[in-house]
Amino acid sequence: MDRQVEYGRFLHGGDYNPEQWLHRPDILKTDIGYFKKAHINTVSVGMFSWAVLEPEEGNYQFEWLAQIIEDLYANGISVILATPTGARPKWMVDKYPEVLRVNENRERNLFGGRHNHCYTSPVYREKMRQMNKALAGRFGNHPAVILWHISNEYGGECHCPLCQEKFREWLREKYGTIEELNARWCTTFWSHQYSSFEQIESPSPRGENELHALKLDWKRFVTARTIDFLQAETAAIREGGSDKPVTANLMYDYAGLDYKKFKDVLDIVSWDNYPTWHKEEEWKTAVDCGLQHDLMRSIQKKPFLLMESCPSSTNWQAVSKLKRPGMLMAASLHAVAHGSDSVLYFQLRQSQGASEKFHGAVIDHYGGDDTRVFREVTEVGAMLEQIREVAGSAVKAQAAVLYDRENDWAMKDSQGPRNEDLHYMECIQKQYKPLRAQGINVDIISMEHTLEGYKLVAVPMAYMFKEGYAEKLKTYAKNGGTLVLTYWSGIVDDTDRCYLGGTPHGMIEAAGLRSTEIDGLYDWDENHAVPRQGNHLGLSKMYSCRNLCDLVKVQDDTEVLMQYGEDFYQGMPALTYHAYGKGQIYYVCADMEEDFYQEFYEKVGAEAGLEKPLEQIPKGVSVATRERDGAVYLFIQNFSGKTVEVPVQGTYTLLYGEDGAQMKPLESRVWKKN
Amino acid sequence: MDRQVEYGRFLHGGDYNPEQWLHRPDILKTDIGYFKKAHINTVSVGMFSWAVLEPEEGNYQFEWLAQIIEDLYANGISVILATPTGARPKWMVDKYPEVLRVNENRERNLFGGRHNHCYTSPVYREKMRQMNKALAGRFGNHPAVILWHISNEYGGECHCPLCQEKFREWLREKYGTIEELNARWCTTFWSHQYSSFEQIESPSPRGENELHALKLDWKRFVTARTIDFLQAETAAIREGGSDKPVTANLMYDYAGLDYKKFKDVLDIVSWDNYPTWHKEEEWKTAVDCGLQHDLMRSIQKKPFLLMESCPSSTNWQAVSKLKRPGMLMAASLHAVAHGSDSVLYFQLRQSQGASEKFHGAVIDHYGGDDTRVFREVTEVGAMLEQIREVAGSAVKAQAAVLYDRENDWAMKDSQGPRNEDLHYMECIQKQYKPLRAQGINVDIISMEHTLEGYKLVAVPMAYMFKEGYAEKLKTYAKNGGTLVLTYWSGIVDDTDRCYLGGTPHGMIEAAGLRSTEIDGLYDWDENHAVPRQGNHLGLSKMYSCRNLCDLVKVQDDTEVLMQYGEDFYQGMPALTYHAYGKGQIYYVCADMEEDFYQEFYEKVGAEAGLEKPLEQIPKGVSVATRERDGAVYLFIQNFSGKTVEVPVQGTYTLLYGEDGAQMKPLESRVWKKN
Amino acid sequence: MDRQVEYGRFLHGGDYNPEQWLHRPDILKTDIGYFKKAHINTVSVGMFSWAVLEPEEGNYQFEWLAQIIEDLYANGISVILATPTGARPKWMVDKYPEVLRVNENRERNLFGGRHNHCYTSPVYREKMRQMNKALAGRFGNHPAVILWHISNEYGGECHCPLCQEKFREWLREKYGTIEELNARWCTTFWSHQYSSFEQIESPSPRGENELHALKLDWKRFVTARTIDFLQAETAAIREGGSDKPVTANLMYDYAGLDYKKFKDVLDIVSWDNYPTWHKEEEWKTAVDCGLQHDLMRSIQKKPFLLMESCPSSTNWQAVSKLKRPGMLMAASLHAVAHGSDSVLYFQLRQSQGASEKFHGAVIDHYGGDDTRVFREVTEVGAMLEQIREVAGSAVKAQAAVLYDRENDWAMKDSQGPRNEDLHYMECIQKQYKPLRAQGINVDIISMEHTLEGYKLVAVPMAYMFKEGYAEKLKTYAKNGGTLVLTYWSGIVDDTDRCYLGGTPHGMIEAAGLRSTEIDGLYDWDENHAVPRQGNHLGLSKMYSCRNLCDLVKVQDDTEVLMQYGEDFYQGMPALTYHAYGKGQIYYVCADMEEDFYQEFYEKVGAEAGLEKPLEQIPKGVSVATRERDGAVYLFIQNFSGKTVEVPVQGTYTLLYGEDGAQMKPLESRVWKKN
Repeated sequence: MDRQVEYGRFLHGGDYNPEQWLHRPDILKTDIGYFKKAHINTVSVGMFSWAVLEPEEGNYQFEWLAQIIEDLYANGISVILATPTGARPKWMVDKYPEVLRVNENRERNLFGGRHNHCYTSPVYREKMRQMNKALAGRFGNHPAVILWHISNEYGGECHCPLCQEKFREWLREKYGTIEELNARWCTTFWSHQYSSFEQIESPSPRGENELHALKLDWKRFVTARTIDFLQAETAAIREGGSDKPVTANLMYDYAGLDYKKFKDVLDIVSWDNYPTWHKEEEWKTAVDCGLQHDLMRSIQKKPFLLMESCPSSTNWQAVSKLKRPGMLMAASLHAVAHGSDSVLYFQLRQSQGASEKFHGAVIDHYGGDDTRVFREVTEVGAMLEQIREVAGSAVKAQAAVLYDRENDWAMKDSQGPRNEDLHYMECIQKQYKPLRAQGINVDIISMEHTLEGYKLVAVPMAYMFKEGYAEKLKTYAKNGGTLVLTYWSGIVDDTDRCYLGGTPHGMIEAAGLRSTEIDGLYDWDENHAVPRQGNHLGLSKMYSCRNLCDLVKVQDDTEVLMQYGEDFYQGMPALTYHAYGKGQIYYVCADMEEDFYQEFYEKVGAEAGLEKPLEQIPKGVSVATRERDGAVYLFIQNFSGKTVEVPVQGTYTLLYGEDGAQMKPLESRVWKKN
Repeated sequence: MDRQVEYGRFLHGGDYNPEQWLHRPDILKTDIGYFKKAHINTVSVGMFSWAVLEPEEGNYQFEWLAQIIEDLYANGISVILATPTGARPKWMVDKYPEVLRVNENRERNLFGGRHNHCYTSPVYREKMRQMNKALAGRFGNHPAVILWHISNEYGGECHCPLCQEKFREWLREKYGTIEELNARWCTTFWSHQYSSFEQIESPSPRGENELHALKLDWKRFVTARTIDFLQAETAAIREGGSDKPVTANLMYDYAGLDYKKFKDVLDIVSWDNYPTWHKEEEWKTAVDCGLQHDLMRSIQKKPFLLMESCPSSTNWQAVSKLKRPGMLMAASLHAVAHGSDSVLYFQLRQSQGASEKFHGAVIDHYGGDDTRVFREVTEVGAMLEQIREVAGSAVKAQAAVLYDRENDWAMKDSQGPRNEDLHYMECIQKQYKPLRAQGINVDIISMEHTLEGYKLVAVPMAYMFKEGYAEKLKTYAKNGGTLVLTYWSGIVDDTDRCYLGGTPHGMIEAAGLRSTEIDGLYDWDENHAVPRQGNHLGLSKMYSCRNLCDLVKVQDDTEVLMQYGEDFYQGMPALTYHAYGKGQIYYVCADMEEDFYQEFYEKVGAEAGLEKPLEQIPKGVSVATRERDGAVYLFIQNFSGKTVEVPVQGTYTLLYGEDGAQMKPLESRVWKKN
Repeated sequence: MDRQVEYGRFLHGGDYNPEQWLHRPDILKTDIGYFKKAHINTVSVGMFSWAVLEPEEGNYQFEWLAQIIEDLYANGISVILATPTGARPKWMVDKYPEVLRVNENRERNLFGGRHNHCYTSPVYREKMRQMNKALAGRFGNHPAVILWHISNEYGGECHCPLCQEKFREWLREKYGTIEELNARWCTTFWSHQYSSFEQIESPSPRGENELHALKLDWKRFVTARTIDFLQAETAAIREGGSDKPVTANLMYDYAGLDYKKFKDVLDIVSWDNYPTWHKEEEWKTAVDCGLQHDLMRSIQKKPFLLMESCPSSTNWQAVSKLKRPGMLMAASLHAVAHGSDSVLYFQLRQSQGASEKFHGAVIDHYGGDDTRVFREVTEVGAMLEQIREVAGSAVKAQAAVLYDRENDWAMKDSQGPRNEDLHYMECIQKQYKPLRAQGINVDIISMEHTLEGYKLVAVPMAYMFKEGYAEKLKTYAKNGGTLVLTYWSGIVDDTDRCYLGGTPHGMIEAAGLRSTEIDGLYDWDENHAVPRQGNHLGLSKMYSCRNLCDLVKVQDDTEVLMQYGEDFYQGMPALTYHAYGKGQIYYVCADMEEDFYQEFYEKVGAEAGLEKPLEQIPKGVSVATRERDGAVYLFIQNFSGKTVEVPVQGTYTLLYGEDGAQMKPLESRVWKKN
């Protein structure tokens, strides 16, 4: 979509459910006063409000919402307006049971929870269409309304007969003939051939649960179905006469949907971030969150919105630890450093009952503004006003790491050398962390993303090579790129069908090696990578490796930088290098320890010409940059847990934070260079 | 109910299933001889006998039972007669499937197990009515029969359409209007409003499972339904012409029912106790059992019956350890010390097959009376005769600890600061143990119980304050009582709806503080409570605290006795004191370690004027008293695992046990003072 | 069955699915060349091929199979032909849903997986009959075909109405009257009496799940039903005109079926062996596999076939470790040493997709013959040709260990002194290992097996004594045998009904003792067995015992060799001996540690006259013998993980392996003595 979403400021505010307080006008009034005090400029309303908006079929009750929007507007506060489809009224379910979801065991759910609706049901779509259209007609051009928030945290799947039929249609369109499907899915195994598309059923623990290609396509279909519903929601809004931009709030590393497919159906990406700060060292949590921020930003390679975050502690984690003083500020600014144009909270006022009543909020059950949380929220609001000019600026990345959801789905379901745990996410983080530790912005990309413009691309555990992906990688390297490929790559095509003739498929000559066998290691096993004398990177330390060890056979012109230290494959390559065109390809044969990657990416980064924003960055300090029109904004945040020295060159001026070389724990600064 | 249940002796005997041995009259005859030898004076029959009592619909076969009752009576043995409703014959299920239960997933059970019947089914109720009436008509006035044993270990729930309808009726009666229910349940959250009672369904993992108030009311309804059934059972007995007292056997810390509601529907409380002696130190198990005995006694504040206990080892625990020599005697006397008027066993003779065939029994498969178990049972029988005068005497408690099932239900289901484990029971035990360690009798009470007469009341983790409970606590303190309140108290009302305006609700001024935030600690975290110089209790040690730390703001006239030692809330109060009226309120802010409570209750107990029966009680020795007409019976039992000195003052005379100051492990003594 | 299955050579080859490669004739051609190169002489085809053999109802497509068989035959390769019933085509399921299985919750499966058919369904049986008959008609007399492979790894159960009806028939036939069934099942417990066979339902978690006798008979019925289906498969083959022998491939320690019942319905036993080599020390894995080989061989006391094994690593274990160089050879020869007449693999060529695509194969996705695996397979083939004369020779055992599936079922389901873990298999292994460590062949037998011919029989944890078993044991001992009996033996009859009058039932006088109680120990508990001065075996060390301690009362003429060292049963017997007739009975009272058994069986083995093939066998070295017509083949395999000395006497000549006393890790040798 091409609607530009720029507000010229940071959005500060969050989710608000005034419908829970209609019997307490005093509270509604107090809240607006509190919002202004806390520098809140944006309020999201309408999430889960269907039963209040339409208490009986066709009886729309919008007055209360109109009043809230007016009141907010009158106080200079913008509105993000949600469609209410995340939950539905009881009358709808009683009259039209088809709107409820059917699980993989083919049981239709009862009323309850949220996200409990069939994405295909014509009834549900029609009810949604009427509601969204009416909302758009009434509020869609109100000057307070700046963004549509479509439903809430889309997720889950439905196995009802209507969805089954859509799945078959989707497969027919994808494969054309049943013979082609049989061939791609390898159904000859265990007599699973289909003689027509009508015979196909979604995967089920009660039925077929090991035909990997069926399961993979089902997951793709679920994403397609969700997006189809999202598009229908948007169309209803347009039909209602509103042309405001739309977003949908995505979730942390959510494996139920392939978010890269949302690129073209949202005007701006937004997401909900609920890290468990203080569970481990803050810098570890920061790396983990940073990767997710980067993933979300990379979907459109544009700023995104932090749609939800917790001003205090959540209520659904095993243990809900309070955010320590300063944590809210640091976490909020961390999102901004990685490309967010907002800091929004769930929630502005705590609900009095039901499942999230103890979820942290700007205003809690006590109800005063004399709380620690309220004070810290207010400080965040003030900070965002102070750095207002940063809003809308870009994050430019010199490096990228591949993290592809389809690859993730396929690999984890494939029954291979290590079913216990492949440690895929850990492997992604091992590439990402040492690059970020150098202050280098990193994109987290899928196989569909272009590789142009990156100086270095890491492709870890790319088990699945989609059609043409080997060519894309080769072109990138041939043109001068530095490519880091690892073990368990190029094994299957995009229907999880093994490539014949050797792997990594299509890359044997380019990478200068062929994988012959792969060893699965028990959790208590390890091997070592031993550097070879004179390797061109000057690696000199030995590192442990675990979990998976690829046994490769190299070409004559391939450099072996490291070798295995033990077991029957002692002496076989553990790290190789092969020049290719103007570029180069490294191949990491085993699941190396983190320290290896630290040294490796320092040396390969230098070789590839990555430019660091600061010479020295102490461990645990997070550094990131945003830029616009020649201006560079440098974010430095101390997540190390101790006081550290981070001197900044004279060309920078301070935009936020205290001056001086020393930074205390959780301290953040924003510097600017023109 | 007001039938006085006093037998003028201790009941000794237990469950017996002669219907399993009708083909072996020799065995039935031998058994009676064995009973007499073992001082068995009471035998329970009829549990689970329905299929033998009514092998075909309407065909009652009572002769075998009549014969047994006659034989027992002729030998001077009393009978507890059970109604057989705990299991039902196969013909009934085949003809009337509605009698079977429906689980929360809305699946009707198949025949099998026990406790597998719908409490609402008109058919089941009618079959029960006919059976109970017939049994009462035939045996209900027999001189041998001294008590009705209604069904067996009531438990479980049914989600069938008939029960759903009853649930709706129950709600309609409770709330009057659907608007009131919506308000109390906070259904606006996630569009869960109901427009009529007809729309309500019981909780289900397939449907609504996070609307806490619905789940809480469902649990209450299950108790109400069970009691309704129990009352119908009793009514049928009365209809049959029997006016003998009734009991129902309750279970160890059973969370499926709210036992306090059984107070008025039983003539005497009875329960089944199966501790895992020898799994940890005996004194720990004794504390655990003692608390349950006290809980059962406190329901009616009257002596109770130990209806089942194991003469040997069970067969359903993970590991069934044999009771060591002397354990049976000590455990039996321990029940008596806490208020039991009986020692009854499951079972008198081991069944030959099916699921409990290896459960310990007075007479085992071998069948002789020359076994260790038979010998020890005989010794218990002799002991009970020796202390016969104690039967019927009262247990008077100076202190009470709140342990309320509704509070337990609400708190554990509420999704708050620690979903992993709130350690509620441990917190109860931390109050109970140091009081019992001083030889002080303790009542375990609910919010409904009066607080009058107690010198000290501990109210730990009283998350839910039912309507009026804050007032009850304040009145108690105002009139001179010593109240110990803890963190996570007064948070919600009785529909789990959060109190607004600050917590502990209604107690802020009385306790002299307000809770501002609560921190959840991981299992590996801890903080410390550090005593303040000059605190009026003279506390001088530092103690660790874990799991939950309440951050409170105190009034000027509140004494802070201890403060947190670490983290950002270092220096904030950890223990406070506030004078209130003629009394006083302590507030324990965090989940303190056991040793804290030991010191705390010694000092607060003294301050509150608690009177100890003995000056010095070695650790691990259990001391309790019963009294009647000026006589005091002092029970001293050595669960410490070693020989200890427990001198008793001259005013006491020995009723049971050996004289002298030294007590060997597992040794027990009963002293009497007039 | 009496068809002699002897091929005069070892079969080498395995499972092959050419139907997956019909579109690649080049691959099919290459494969045959590879087979010949690798000394492959036998190929199994047809497993799971139904959808290709009958793509539409009644439309048989056998040409492709005919072509493969011709091609193999033309190249001197034999064929094992499978019936395709392990999976079924989708059209069959769509048209006849009854062919799908119903699970214990009474839900009918959807299409998918394998082994997903009802064994009773008349439709499935008819479809099978037509298919098997047609296959037999077409290929059943082809000279290439040497064996029928019936279905694949039979397993699982069906609870459909048709199976329920068969279960009732089976019970009626077994018990005659419902009164007899009620008596044997002890249904009086919990009112579970049946008034007719029609009332009986299979066990279910939704219904009856604790009536042990019902569950035990259901398990027996599942075996009976499976065998009935197997016989129907064989009958169809015979009907089709083929008289070739049949086998069915059994599984590792599979508890779902009672394999001893397959004795008379197979011409030769075959099984699939997938050990996790390299997970623990190799010698431990070797003991574990050896026991299973011996179990399979003991079913018919004849050579068996290793039907499946993995040439590389599997893909379904938690971690699939590569077989280290030499492991394949050692494992293959280990099977032969224990009585196998084949080394067959799953699979010859890796499938390109679906659930087993990463399962190891002789030819992998790469497709070349220049792989480590292919080379090692070829070496195995060559070795088998070198020792060809061993094929068909017998394994003669001097000792036997009882391991009865019915006993296993009953004991584990019985709810007794230790529900957590009875450590039955460990107890079996504790008897087996020290005997095998002396190089003594051991049979693993059931209660049905004769005891004649054994010098020593170990009967560990024989909880169930089937009708007449006590007599069988007594006769064995009376006639001069050495019997080792342990705790928890002779407790119940074959419907899990407890024996009255003392245990071990029927053996009290013969063993010279009676069990009085049995103590369950927690995992952290232990006791000790202390030798008594002058015990006739000369035992002098103390050993620990855990888990279960039997407290026995001995007769005057019983020797107590060891006594408990602690607890209240200190001084009671821990090991006893009683002379009986010409023989003797040892009774091991507790779950002793492994080292006890090591010393015990060395001394008792010598006393019983067991003859060892070698004087000294280093720990971790596996020694076994096969013999025929006076020739003895001695297998020595070094699983110890280090180089050891194993000198062999001059009368032996080397048939395979290197000469010399020293053996390297994983080295194997075959010696021959005439």
